[in-house]
Amino acid sequence: MRIALLGVGLIGGSVGLAARERLGAEIVGHDPSRRALEEALERGAVDRTTATAADALAGSSACFCCAPVGELPGLVAEALAAAPSDCVVTDVGSTKRAIAACARDERFVGGHPVAGAETAGVRHARADLFQDAAWYLTPSERSSGVLYERLHRLVTSLGARPVALDAETHDRLLATVSHLPHVLANVLVAQAADTATEEGEVLPAAGPSFRDATRVAGANTGIWTDIYLSNADAIAAEVDDTARRLGEVAAALRAGEADAIRGWNDAARAARTRLVDADLAAGPVSELTVSVPNQPGIVAQVALALGRAGVNIADLALAPAADMRSGSITLWVSGERARERACELIVNLGYPVS
Amino acid sequence: MRIALLGVGLIGGSVGLAARERLGAEIVGHDPSRRALEEALERGAVDRTTATAADALAGSSACFCCAPVGELPGLVAEALAAAPSDCVVTDVGSTKRAIAACARDERFVGGHPVAGAETAGVRHARADLFQDAAWYLTPSERSSGVLYERLHRLVTSLGARPVALDAETHDRLLATVSHLPHVLANVLVAQAADTATEEGEVLPAAGPSFRDATRVAGANTGIWTDIYLSNADAIAAEVDDTARRLGEVAAALRAGEADAIRGWNDAARAARTRLVDADLAAGPVSELTVSVPNQPGIVAQVALALGRAGVNIADLALAPAADMRSGSITLWVSGERARERACELIVNLGYPVS
Repeated sequence: MRIALLGVGLIGGSVGLAARERLGAEIVGHDPSRRALEEALERGAVDRTTATAADALAGSSACFCCAPVGELPGLVAEALAAAPSDCVVTDVGSTKRAIAACARDERFVGGHPVAGAETAGVRHARADLFQDAAWYLTPSERSSGVLYERLHRLVTSLGARPVALDAETHDRLLATVSHLPHVLANVLVAQAADTATEEGEVLPAAGPSFRDATRVAGANTGIWTDIYLSNADAIAAEVDDTARRLGEVAAALRAGEADAIRGWNDAARAARTRLVDADLAAGPVSELTVSVPNQPGIVAQVALALGRAGVNIADLALAPAADMRSGSITLWVSGERARERACELIVNLGYPVS
Repeated sequence: MRIALLGVGLIGGSVGLAARERLGAEIVGHDPSRRALEEALERGAVDRTTATAADALAGSSACFCCAPVGELPGLVAEALAAAPSDCVVTDVGSTKRAIAACARDERFVGGHPVAGAETAGVRHARADLFQDAAWYLTPSERSSGVLYERLHRLVTSLGARPVALDAETHDRLLATVSHLPHVLANVLVAQAADTATEEGEVLPAAGPSFRDATRVAGANTGIWTDIYLSNADAIAAEVDDTARRLGEVAAALRAGEADAIRGWNDAARAARTRLVDADLAAGPVSELTVSVPNQPGIVAQVALALGRAGVNIADLALAPAADMRSGSITLWVSGERARERACELIVNLGYPVS
């Protein structure tokens, strides 16, 4: 299997290392930076490099476009122009609506590995960067089922857990669970710094709660400015909502409403348990076989329904029936609750499950 | 040395374990809960228990009042009523203004160890709970220098780093670096839970930034309701300030101001480095001797000046001169920067340093 990497920085380099080590794939890299290409060769992240993106794509069955969000539309268009007809093209950008709007091609499936924005460069690349990390896949209704399946398996082989979401939902949920925490970290650290400056004091012994809350403050400016701008409307809506909620908290504090504060704190504990500690995926693996019409978009539809509900598809396989008008998707999910939820969701889509 | 513990939960129990193990002190415990006293004896956190607070105080040279913030005024008053004239009485509450206003006695020095609010009960007590943790001391202008010195050394012996702050500054700074992060964690987790509920979705794969940002969400409701209420005005002011800053961020996002966002993110990174990574205390230990008049409040004055500036006093010792009208304070601080800053601050107070 030959894989093209357009961009060999931290993410591209780690895809290369993991795919060579775990899949024995041949990795062909292209990057505008000659120095990055040399480092990628030295690190063993690529087998060879090419002078153009088109040369890297020749004979490849998958292509990862690894560049800052702002450069992805141009890069993905270049990849699709050169990619063979049976090559899946994906990207690794942290926001997905903009690229989904540009790359309307059956070979394209958007992607977003949740890993390592704190460092940059192929010198920090690691074969295990994606181990157990979520890797969002954002197929559109145009995306080929066969190519989606290939990308799902590839991402699983790299050690990641693929989660299907449509681009719109992806950007809205990530605004809440990733972009907003980054905004809050930045605001908190700026506020504390201003307090220290105003008072002419060094802040003594910032405790563990401050360190945790500000760990991601000032993350890589190049990458994060792109993320903030490409998802600005969704993030601004979340930020406004937080400000409104803070106004309510300040009012309750000033009024000394002990019961309200107690209830608010208890609710926060319960919510965190539900959101962070809940593990739908614990338990033995179940195999589900879904009979579907042989139409484009069906695989994406099933994967998206499960992804939105938080059901992790450990693996999936497609098999066309002899008549080529129908077929089956076999899914593997972990845990009894996930199995039940998956069956319910698929039956709701109108497909029989066994 | 005999130490009285009024309250033998997580904090009191850990003081007992550490003081027995590291100082060979005799620990006498009292607690309204008979069960807590039995557990404290079983765990070896106390040598013996008493039926009343006054019995525990008899013959003690230090007393730790370990109860939720709301119960401290009564408990500290009880301790001061029974304590010998040369016994230092302290508390371990997370806010300090309220208790400072009640306990106006030369034997009282407020305290706040920054450790372990996530669990409760003597069964979680540990001799190393305070190792390398900050332990705020809030002496007033009334506090005895000799008793302050004793408490400073005791706290150091327990493994902690004492930091002197006046009660007002303590509460304002803690509102920024501790209470506000707890509020933000609660608000963020509530907002994410509401998003999940509204969308009928499980939030898939909440990433590391969300986990870090919400780690303290819903911390012990009993303890934290007391903290929120006893520092409500300072926290509400910080919360309002955060809401105002979020409004500015939302406006910059909607306007797509790339330069403003880039600068804001860069500033956050620089601020975090300054606040969290800066270590004024790295380097060899210096000894400073300060000549002072033999008056009450001088030790507190010197300790507070250094504490506010973030200079960590590793150890201190008092020595009266033969005339008993003057004396010296010997201080040990770590690192060249800390030594220079300490000299400057003490000279500004009008005392000669050598």
